[in-house]
Amino acid sequence: MVYEGHKRVIIEHLRPQIDGGEFPIKRVLGERVRVEADVFADGHEQLAVLLMWRPMSAKTWKTKPMRPLANDVWSASFVCEGLEPYEYTVRGWMDHYETWRLNLIKKMDVGQDISVDLRIGAAFLKKGVKQAKGNKKKILESIFKKFNMLKNDKAIRLFIQNEKYNQSIRESITPSFITEYNKKLQVKVHRTRALFSSWYELFPRSTKENSLQHGTFKDCEKILPDIAAMGFDVVYFPPIHPIGVTNRKGKNNVLGAASGDPGSPWAIGSAEGGHKSVHPELGTIKDFRRLVKKTKSLGMEIALDLAFQCSPDHPYENEHPEWFKWRPDGTVQYAENPPKKYEDIIPFNFETRDQKNLWKELKSIVDFWIEKGVRIFRVDNPHTKPYVFWQWLLGEVEKSHPDVIFLAEAFTRPKIMRHLAKLGFHQSYTYFTWRTTKKEFIKYLTELTKTEAKEYFRPNFWPNTPDILSIYLQNADRAAFVIRLVLAATMSSNYGIYGPAYELCENQPTPGKEEYADNEKYEIKDWRLGAADSMRPFITQLNHIRRKYDAFQTTRNIRFHRSESEHILCYSKMSRDTAEIFIVVVNLDPQGTQSGWVDIPVLDWGFDKDRPYQVEDVLTEVKTTWTNERNIVKLDPRKCPAQIFRLEKIS
Amino acid sequence: MVYEGHKRVIIEHLRPQIDGGEFPIKRVLGERVRVEADVFADGHEQLAVLLMWRPMSAKTWKTKPMRPLANDVWSASFVCEGLEPYEYTVRGWMDHYETWRLNLIKKMDVGQDISVDLRIGAAFLKKGVKQAKGNKKKILESIFKKFNMLKNDKAIRLFIQNEKYNQSIRESITPSFITEYNKKLQVKVHRTRALFSSWYELFPRSTKENSLQHGTFKDCEKILPDIAAMGFDVVYFPPIHPIGVTNRKGKNNVLGAASGDPGSPWAIGSAEGGHKSVHPELGTIKDFRRLVKKTKSLGMEIALDLAFQCSPDHPYENEHPEWFKWRPDGTVQYAENPPKKYEDIIPFNFETRDQKNLWKELKSIVDFWIEKGVRIFRVDNPHTKPYVFWQWLLGEVEKSHPDVIFLAEAFTRPKIMRHLAKLGFHQSYTYFTWRTTKKEFIKYLTELTKTEAKEYFRPNFWPNTPDILSIYLQNADRAAFVIRLVLAATMSSNYGIYGPAYELCENQPTPGKEEYADNEKYEIKDWRLGAADSMRPFITQLNHIRRKYDAFQTTRNIRFHRSESEHILCYSKMSRDTAEIFIVVVNLDPQGTQSGWVDIPVLDWGFDKDRPYQVEDVLTEVKTTWTNERNIVKLDPRKCPAQIFRLEKIS
Repeated sequence: MVYEGHKRVIIEHLRPQIDGGEFPIKRVLGERVRVEADVFADGHEQLAVLLMWRPMSAKTWKTKPMRPLANDVWSASFVCEGLEPYEYTVRGWMDHYETWRLNLIKKMDVGQDISVDLRIGAAFLKKGVKQAKGNKKKILESIFKKFNMLKNDKAIRLFIQNEKYNQSIRESITPSFITEYNKKLQVKVHRTRALFSSWYELFPRSTKENSLQHGTFKDCEKILPDIAAMGFDVVYFPPIHPIGVTNRKGKNNVLGAASGDPGSPWAIGSAEGGHKSVHPELGTIKDFRRLVKKTKSLGMEIALDLAFQCSPDHPYENEHPEWFKWRPDGTVQYAENPPKKYEDIIPFNFETRDQKNLWKELKSIVDFWIEKGVRIFRVDNPHTKPYVFWQWLLGEVEKSHPDVIFLAEAFTRPKIMRHLAKLGFHQSYTYFTWRTTKKEFIKYLTELTKTEAKEYFRPNFWPNTPDILSIYLQNADRAAFVIRLVLAATMSSNYGIYGPAYELCENQPTPGKEEYADNEKYEIKDWRLGAADSMRPFITQLNHIRRKYDAFQTTRNIRFHRSESEHILCYSKMSRDTAEIFIVVVNLDPQGTQSGWVDIPVLDWGFDKDRPYQVEDVLTEVKTTWTNERNIVKLDPRKCPAQIFRLEKIS
Repeated sequence: MVYEGHKRVIIEHLRPQIDGGEFPIKRVLGERVRVEADVFADGHEQLAVLLMWRPMSAKTWKTKPMRPLANDVWSASFVCEGLEPYEYTVRGWMDHYETWRLNLIKKMDVGQDISVDLRIGAAFLKKGVKQAKGNKKKILESIFKKFNMLKNDKAIRLFIQNEKYNQSIRESITPSFITEYNKKLQVKVHRTRALFSSWYELFPRSTKENSLQHGTFKDCEKILPDIAAMGFDVVYFPPIHPIGVTNRKGKNNVLGAASGDPGSPWAIGSAEGGHKSVHPELGTIKDFRRLVKKTKSLGMEIALDLAFQCSPDHPYENEHPEWFKWRPDGTVQYAENPPKKYEDIIPFNFETRDQKNLWKELKSIVDFWIEKGVRIFRVDNPHTKPYVFWQWLLGEVEKSHPDVIFLAEAFTRPKIMRHLAKLGFHQSYTYFTWRTTKKEFIKYLTELTKTEAKEYFRPNFWPNTPDILSIYLQNADRAAFVIRLVLAATMSSNYGIYGPAYELCENQPTPGKEEYADNEKYEIKDWRLGAADSMRPFITQLNHIRRKYDAFQTTRNIRFHRSESEHILCYSKMSRDTAEIFIVVVNLDPQGTQSGWVDIPVLDWGFDKDRPYQVEDVLTEVKTTWTNERNIVKLDPRKCPAQIFRLEKIS
């Protein structure tokens, strides 16, 4: 081993850093990366520590001096300005000039003889003059001349405390024995929607107005303006491909489908095509392109479902039998998790010898839909396909289309969910759906926003999905739906609803399961949206608040506050420029009015002690005044179980 | 990037791991390394996970299956059996046979048709027979034959639950698509004394009995048997080299030494020699060799001080002026931390262009004393020399002498102390000296023994040193000395005392400083050891307990327990084979009797509820019985402020 023996500065534990730098952290355009490192050296001398960062395509580094905090931690930050990966690292060296300068002051303070020290200082300047070039050389020569003419302590003090001189001197002296941190760490930079998005999920086949007939993309177009008016920006469709006939599931997931049953859209592939085809009853590729365009014109975009599995009728089974597992009896291996069987679903065998072609083909599916204008994919069960496959696929797509966003639908164990996020998924479904108590929310959100996970795991909160009608919402009142919506939309900057069912407070479960009765996955629905008692106006207002205020456009800024009632969850969200602060209070009990003290650290935020400040509930626009840190809230679920207060000083 | 697309198992966060594997963990001979990793795969299949370890000199790995704990954590352990570095890593793969086996049981449990599954099973066995060799092939053929003859469910169940068959089958099938963790992590293995040692520091020049004359190594020999009888195993000497004359410090650290003042041993070097010489008044190198031998014969060893600095009279300054910093007035740069000056100390300039020769020479000093039989070095202020230097030096010494132990005397900021430990120091001085309250002890010991630091930082607890007479011991009663001694000797497996001063409860400070009055660093003492009121008998007993019971021979096993009194610290130490448990209770208040409830989790330890058990204070040999978890202790500092209870079930 070769030791670089002159390097005296140690740089350790550069952060944020995921798994020793194996995985990048994530930011969106314009977001800041606050970098910290433990930096120290032997002895008592001064250090210079520099943050270095650049887009990975750039040749030169941008730099900024880091500042020491307590306990040998140094800190500085930079902003990601381009839609491309960045890298960052830290350099440090002994700052001999600064050491000399500060020691000189200390010696003068106690009246020690400094004649030799001044001669040492002159040597620094001489070296600087020698190393500087061009105009800088001239400036330094003039500074040196001034230094040589210093007559008394007062003049010396003025000189060495002149920050302009010091900067010129420091810049002119080439540092030696520089330590660079042993890794360059990466940031993936995504577009803003990766961090801030409001999703509306719907089955396009259920969009024919007042009808149980199969809807088309054209029917779908007609309801888009209403979704846009509600303030959503992503419209997500379950798979839109031809649906298999063999072992098709009937209504309520029964094994034998009746004639006319449309089947689950996730049973992809029939004689009419596979993952690159559109289910004929929905329309054509041309219709789809038109729909994409229409959606875009409304300020939204379509998200498609990537479900890498086949129905028994998928053309792949004939064209690429080597991509599947075959049983000794000559039948293809269907999906199973014994004793459960999923006979309408055939998984790919990722251990196939023809792996390269399988991967290539799956990527070509993504490319196909990108070419049709899709930029967001919701990935079905990514945790049942190899992780290296996703790492490769997402990496390849990023190279050509850095604006594509993938949402991981992995409702599985925590480490697996985190791993998928690490290897590239832009957003992730979460356990939000099953968190209901105050303690659970605080614990879970703390885990998501205050641990390392905040650097790479972007939560997307869904109160419901076609797969999940949580116990909390089963047979529940409208208040319960309001509670879950406010929580999702104000705690997390990414959230979504399975829209038609949520708007209408659909609350009927399949008995004993967390599943909707008469699930839309297996039948066409006539939703009759826009009913008088629909949640549309409330949803619209909530999305309006999210769009208007920066504080709701990031998730990491959540901070919980003490509230007296065990039913009242209280948290704040502060805008990234710290100018605006919101306090959200939610009564988690949909049945009864709850009230109690909440403690808001307004003094920390620069509010004056004993001076009233204004709190405006942006849901109702009702204003009131509070004073100091303790105030009372009262939440009646029959009116509204939540309040979103905007705090404002009264001048 | 090339993805190994068939590897489906993910292995993350292998631990213990220091700074991404940059630094090794530490163990002593025979100590266990418990390894954990997060391991998972896509899908629902079974995994096989293997811990792999070997001495780094070995070609083949030892292996052991890891067992799953909760939350995707897998665990196994190994023991370090040789005095050389070990490495460890983890491998994992999909266990298709085990998946098949468990699924078959699940299917049989619900009565599903398994005929196809049996044919799949036969294929596994066939493959196994094909891949197996020699005797194993024969065994597998016979197992296969049995499998083919299975007639009914009961026989099938018996077969696939036969662990012998399963092991043969598993061993015969070569696993494919193996994931190996991306790093091999290192363990440095040291001799036992690196973990368990009792140090006695003394100035050899103060060993002439009943005299203020300069003692010699021969005088020193005479008191060694007493130190051995007290149960110490390391006798540590401040520097034994010629002491400089220029700027020599007089009594009580005054700048001008009076004639006859011996000077500080840390001002190394005079016309009589430098770091490879012995101060003539102490004797000769031959005398030193004899002393080393004598010490060894008493079951102890000598630790020398490595203070890499020079007095102004050190021969190096003439021989190697390039190793020092020279000031513009032609004088050599002395040590300073402005406004403080240390004019009797000249530091090396580690930024010298002649760095290689400087390093080489410093290493030759260590080699010189190793050659004289020394195997332990206490390193003076390592944090004022470059860290890379120590990493190199300790690494080089380890190659030729893996039995050499270095103790870092760095009383400085936490990250620096930890860094020195990471880069190779075997033991470290600590903040123990300044921890006095219950809260402080619990916090500090938790930091040392329950965080990552426990893997590489071996604390050595010193109640006093020639540099530090802590406030707690200043003008304090004997009880205070007993308290600090019990804490040091029972909390930490490595501890030491500046012996003569401690034995005699020397408590006079230099006013306003944490320093002894009339410090032995600057004058010769006539200690008159063995006085009637000396702490010798108590120290002897404490060291006896440490030697007798394994529980006190490691530090990581400390566990704190609730005690009612804020003055009573209560902790347990369990032997590594879990057979013996000790409860230590210490009254931190040397002035007054304290009593109160302590809560001991005896039920966790397998003691029966409501059945009395015996507690024997091994200090007094007084036995009593306790019942259940809450018991009362009462500690009178005038008798003894501490009790060390050995717990024993009454049969």
